[in-house]
Amino acid sequence: MQWRELPAIYLEDPGSPVQRSSYLIELHTDDGGSYDVVSDASSPAARECCAQQGSARHNWEMNYQEAAIYLQEGENNDKFFTHPKNAKALAAYLFAHNHLFYLMELSTALLLLLLSLCEAPAVPMLRLGIFVHATLELFALIVVVFELSMKMRWLGFQTFIRHKRTMVKTCVLLVQFIEAIVVLVRQTSHVRITRALRCIFLVDCRYCGAVRRNLRQIFQSLPPFIDILLLLLFFMVIFAILGFYLFSPNHSDPYFNTLENSLVNLFVLLTTSNFPDVMMPSYARNPWSCVFFIVYLSIELYFIMNLLLAVVFDTFNDIEKRKFKSLLLHKRTAIQHAYRLLVTKQRPSGISFKHFEGLLRFYKPRMCARERYLTFKALNQSNTPLVSLKDFYNFYEVVGLKWKAKRNREHWFDDLPRTAFLIFKGINILVKSRVFQYTMYTVVAVNGIWILVETFMLQGGNFFSRNVPWSYIVFLTIYGVELLLKTTGLGPVEYLSSGWNLFDFSVTLFAFLGLMALAFDMEPFYFIVVLRPLQLLRLFKLKKRYRNVLDTMFELFPRMASLGLTLLIFYYCFAIVGMEFFAGVVYPNCCNTSTVADSYRWVNHTVGNKTVVEEGYYYLNNFDNILNSFVTLFELTVVNDWYIIMEGVTSQTTHWSRLYFMIFYIVTMVVMTIIVAFILDAFVFRMNYTRKNQDSEDNGIVLEKEISKEEVIGIIELYKRTSAATETAQLQKIVLQMDKYGQMSTVFLGRRSRTKSDLSMKMYEEEIQEWYEEHSRKEESQPPVQEAAPAASSSLKPLSLRQRSQTVI
Amino acid sequence: MQWRELPAIYLEDPGSPVQRSSYLIELHTDDGGSYDVVSDASSPAARECCAQQGSARHNWEMNYQEAAIYLQEGENNDKFFTHPKNAKALAAYLFAHNHLFYLMELSTALLLLLLSLCEAPAVPMLRLGIFVHATLELFALIVVVFELSMKMRWLGFQTFIRHKRTMVKTCVLLVQFIEAIVVLVRQTSHVRITRALRCIFLVDCRYCGAVRRNLRQIFQSLPPFIDILLLLLFFMVIFAILGFYLFSPNHSDPYFNTLENSLVNLFVLLTTSNFPDVMMPSYARNPWSCVFFIVYLSIELYFIMNLLLAVVFDTFNDIEKRKFKSLLLHKRTAIQHAYRLLVTKQRPSGISFKHFEGLLRFYKPRMCARERYLTFKALNQSNTPLVSLKDFYNFYEVVGLKWKAKRNREHWFDDLPRTAFLIFKGINILVKSRVFQYTMYTVVAVNGIWILVETFMLQGGNFFSRNVPWSYIVFLTIYGVELLLKTTGLGPVEYLSSGWNLFDFSVTLFAFLGLMALAFDMEPFYFIVVLRPLQLLRLFKLKKRYRNVLDTMFELFPRMASLGLTLLIFYYCFAIVGMEFFAGVVYPNCCNTSTVADSYRWVNHTVGNKTVVEEGYYYLNNFDNILNSFVTLFELTVVNDWYIIMEGVTSQTTHWSRLYFMIFYIVTMVVMTIIVAFILDAFVFRMNYTRKNQDSEDNGIVLEKEISKEEVIGIIELYKRTSAATETAQLQKIVLQMDKYGQMSTVFLGRRSRTKSDLSMKMYEEEIQEWYEEHSRKEESQPPVQEAAPAASSSLKPLSLRQRSQTVI
Repeated sequence: MQWRELPAIYLEDPGSPVQRSSYLIELHTDDGGSYDVVSDASSPAARECCAQQGSARHNWEMNYQEAAIYLQEGENNDKFFTHPKNAKALAAYLFAHNHLFYLMELSTALLLLLLSLCEAPAVPMLRLGIFVHATLELFALIVVVFELSMKMRWLGFQTFIRHKRTMVKTCVLLVQFIEAIVVLVRQTSHVRITRALRCIFLVDCRYCGAVRRNLRQIFQSLPPFIDILLLLLFFMVIFAILGFYLFSPNHSDPYFNTLENSLVNLFVLLTTSNFPDVMMPSYARNPWSCVFFIVYLSIELYFIMNLLLAVVFDTFNDIEKRKFKSLLLHKRTAIQHAYRLLVTKQRPSGISFKHFEGLLRFYKPRMCARERYLTFKALNQSNTPLVSLKDFYNFYEVVGLKWKAKRNREHWFDDLPRTAFLIFKGINILVKSRVFQYTMYTVVAVNGIWILVETFMLQGGNFFSRNVPWSYIVFLTIYGVELLLKTTGLGPVEYLSSGWNLFDFSVTLFAFLGLMALAFDMEPFYFIVVLRPLQLLRLFKLKKRYRNVLDTMFELFPRMASLGLTLLIFYYCFAIVGMEFFAGVVYPNCCNTSTVADSYRWVNHTVGNKTVVEEGYYYLNNFDNILNSFVTLFELTVVNDWYIIMEGVTSQTTHWSRLYFMIFYIVTMVVMTIIVAFILDAFVFRMNYTRKNQDSEDNGIVLEKEISKEEVIGIIELYKRTSAATETAQLQKIVLQMDKYGQMSTVFLGRRSRTKSDLSMKMYEEEIQEWYEEHSRKEESQPPVQEAAPAASSSLKPLSLRQRSQTVI
Repeated sequence: MQWRELPAIYLEDPGSPVQRSSYLIELHTDDGGSYDVVSDASSPAARECCAQQGSARHNWEMNYQEAAIYLQEGENNDKFFTHPKNAKALAAYLFAHNHLFYLMELSTALLLLLLSLCEAPAVPMLRLGIFVHATLELFALIVVVFELSMKMRWLGFQTFIRHKRTMVKTCVLLVQFIEAIVVLVRQTSHVRITRALRCIFLVDCRYCGAVRRNLRQIFQSLPPFIDILLLLLFFMVIFAILGFYLFSPNHSDPYFNTLENSLVNLFVLLTTSNFPDVMMPSYARNPWSCVFFIVYLSIELYFIMNLLLAVVFDTFNDIEKRKFKSLLLHKRTAIQHAYRLLVTKQRPSGISFKHFEGLLRFYKPRMCARERYLTFKALNQSNTPLVSLKDFYNFYEVVGLKWKAKRNREHWFDDLPRTAFLIFKGINILVKSRVFQYTMYTVVAVNGIWILVETFMLQGGNFFSRNVPWSYIVFLTIYGVELLLKTTGLGPVEYLSSGWNLFDFSVTLFAFLGLMALAFDMEPFYFIVVLRPLQLLRLFKLKKRYRNVLDTMFELFPRMASLGLTLLIFYYCFAIVGMEFFAGVVYPNCCNTSTVADSYRWVNHTVGNKTVVEEGYYYLNNFDNILNSFVTLFELTVVNDWYIIMEGVTSQTTHWSRLYFMIFYIVTMVVMTIIVAFILDAFVFRMNYTRKNQDSEDNGIVLEKEISKEEVIGIIELYKRTSAATETAQLQKIVLQMDKYGQMSTVFLGRRSRTKSDLSMKMYEEEIQEWYEEHSRKEESQPPVQEAAPAASSSLKPLSLRQRSQTVI
């Protein structure tokens, strides 16, 4: 806190902006002007002209809004050519950019996807009449049409046509529409493989941005992947020919009797799924034939497959870095755009609080006045009352902080009477002691062994008897006491702010519910009892590596979820295709002519006086409805014994069905390899980061700012002028509190969790400076942007030079 | 070539060395001196005293030899505490450090390992009487005793005891000795699991240094690996308990009826080996039970297993770097030691050629005089006739270069008469043209498709008929013509110097041999025909990525081979244990009481008038002799259906046999993960390297040096003095050649292929300087070494500073 000028400076006259919002120019041209809005909204002439006209207040509001939109675009990585270009587009943009609209988008997409549960072949419980589901589909499609028309209004026809994803969506929409109408008219479902394309509606949702990114990354990794895949297939063909020559003279070998069989079996061998079996007939004849298989597996499985992983991993790494770079530069450009809209002609070197506050009103409407001021102060690194462009570059890092007044009390019970204080203080010390912690670990370990032994002794029978075992009650009591002590000792807020404590709490709660279920004999809840072993997870707090792993896991979770969703989208496409072709193909005893007949057998024969059911069960792995298809596809993903499913279906249809299964294998291989590469990358990155920053504690980003009473009063004055009653009331509360404790200033803490972007910032520290320089050089070579904001450009150049010199020295 | 002084400077008097060889001091003390040799061989007093005594020539020879030994130790990463400390030890050291001794070591180790082929349970063809193989074993063990005694003589008893690996070897030797004698006395084999320890003799061989490194790396990667493994097993136990509670009420589910079964089946599920089957009974009863399995596999297989890879990969990376660092510093220290033995008191700032030549005579006896001089010139970067310590640090990079006079002729046929020259020139241009290359690719592609179609048309029957197919002859003729053209156009030497041409050549040769085999109906060689498709591999020259991949593959090959050998050593241990416990346990129809009875079935029943043999073949996967065991273990490594082998053996022995299979799975998982990590690391490293050095061509390291006639004559003078006849004759040949062509100087090219170490040097360029500084700081804090070589230390410090400033600027 070096800067303690009188707050009156915030109240200076707003002046006129350096650059006018393009919507504003549009509004004025509507009034009779003649400016070419789209092509050069920011020509000096236009600015000059607008500045002369009145209604400065209105001008500024427009500027705030456009700056906020720029910042949003920067954050969401929306390209600037989709920036709304006039007031009409702005209205559509605002309509299409709020959570209600997003939710509508998502729910229609989900509705369309879920329809396949009810369309033939439907899940038995959810079957709907053709009329019903076709109508539902038409309804959903109409909603999509509405969404698209809003988007067109916002983007304009030209941009709409140029936007590839939107165009694909429009085409799919058209096809779906026609098909839905055909179904409705004919009142019967035809082969509708195009249903597989429905996923595009989900992918296009605003909330599925991560999925889109994943898909892009997968497609970008494809070229090198395909190269290595060709190598793999090439060796497969060579070995298939060799295998055919070597083993087909052996008539008891069904795997290599034709070249096609030879190829298929070596493809399956690539997945190891038929391994010792495929070798056995030839091995029985000549022991040395195992060399063929060992060489094949060594080359294909152990070498080329790993090479595939290496290539994908490397490409992935490279793409991640380039993505991070482009995102960073995109944000930087967005900030520059916004900055130009917020500086005044009188003071071109920075943004005053008044304008910053105006921006935040649009950018984050729910932020309260105190937080807006704190964000402004956190951004402002210099001694002036203005935020310069250099400071403003940190906007995204600072705006996410959650601000809280630094508490003066150490414990929640500090204000209690002496006796109570001492008791709670004692509990607090006890709870925080190592002895207490290790005692609890011991209890959990004993509990774990107890459960193991108990389960081992329990051989079959009814586990869920009315008698609650006493050990259960004892351990639960201990956990209950621990929970109570911790809650009272630390205070409920602090207790629940730790993820581990939250986990303890919920597990204990579940165990308690389980006890209730046992005691009151509530059948449907018996599964809660089964969750008891989860208590043991608490032991993982013991070791640092596990804590690291679990922390990384939680950090990765959103990304993992989006990868899982991507996989599910592929599953959906394949499930639809599978259902259209293979529904009802597989049933008990269906494949008696094939080599995998045993797995599909269902025989019910009587031995003596007992009925023995011989079941192969594989007929359950079918494509009869979408849920079954998903399970079948998961089995295919796991790969083991997938050829049984393939051969079963093939024996009932044609040889070409194998293509479906092989393509699915290759697709999942791509996705899985990328998932593995992602996990590898994330963990290796994290471990490198930890190694680089061994000393620094890793608990989020924290910023401290002090606010004096005068400053608050000054801001209240400002708000009073603009007659913002709620803000004034809020701020006055702070002043009252300061008065109550007799303080002249309050310290606030801004906190947020560390994101991958923060880590990357630190890892690529040196390179980032190079990128910035390169970027600003490019900017310089684009005179129109430069010329539009001379104030911005002048502060841009020395900044990057200065920052660079800091890193070098 | 800036340095052109008169060569007479090389002839200066050797003077007396700064530091005397420790053997020499020992020799002198033998004459009646009283120096404490081992503790402080290099005290100033000792040096002073020795220098006063005569026989300077003899002194120098000793110094050369010790310096050469230091450099060898640096290269082989032998620790300096094993440096031979006196003349007796030196004799033993020299005896134990030559290829004859190494070969003896290797062959005894191999003999011991191969004995298990002949010992019961032996491979039927190779069975030997107990008396014979026990005698052979005793003989081999006696040779090992001899080797160890030589080592003890060289190391001295103290060091011998301290050297861990040698001590373990001695203990194993003792046990083996006793057991061999017991076998010989009792004339019957007892359970000898200790035979598994025989591998230690192989591991300890000089030639198996890479295997030792791998093993060390595996053991170093273990701690983090075990942590994650525990996490894996922990989740397995939790899920086993859950699974037992959930599925044991279902009596048709054999997989979860007891806790033990539940555990075993979830362990197998971890390898996906029993996947859809283990789910099927519960899935048939309640479709939602698939959630349990999907969650289990997602957590264990797709998350924790990849985490395992990430952790191993990260540790591996880290270890590789640390290993490289320690090796680099070790070499540096070795060079410092050698340097101190080679500088004279008169000229403490560098090594003269005379002394350098003396060193090389011991270090590389087979190097010719010309190469020695060229190496010296390549090292010498300064204008003085002495090699300073800074230059000497490049010793290992330069000494590996192969020197050749730069040829003045472009083609081999330049000296031929005009007509012949023109013809060959034409062929040369043709062969190098793109059209020719792409024509050949087309031919190969057509050939490939031809083979594929031909094979596809050929359904069964005798492929190896007497009629040679005409297509075969046509294509072979084309390849033959190509080979001829290339050989004549490029000259045989240049043609065969490219790996790809070598490959072409050998494949064509094989195809030709195949044709011969077909034509003359030689049954045993028919397999050569089968190699025809390998021709297609030539297509991979087409794409740069493939060339890169294959180049990397060849670079990796030695390391891959050593990893494979490491795996084989583990196989050997497990094979011995397996044979001792499970030999003869599995046979046709052995396991009718187990769940995997079908796989071991062998039924020979008559249907109608045909005999149908129903074979499960799995009884072939046994431990009946060491070769069978290896195949079985490979099948266990591939993992698919490994539980059938496990259950078969378990049903014939006890439940505890499962432990053997599970431990084997975990061990191979470790080794395989490390192999994957290694391949990943190597390729990612290579790709990063290529990205960093996109412009530079990557064809080995080349150095150019010019030698003038006067220099050669000067060196001849030098050699004449020391009366080295062969060297003089060699050098005179160069002078004669120069005279013949009327040149005053000849340019020589030094060439060697790029090693991983070179790549690492370039990748870690910046860090290496830091390591050196750190290292020299440490040196400074060790006064005895410093004080022994003041000349060296004074040149050491400014060097590192200067080098650093170069990198920073």
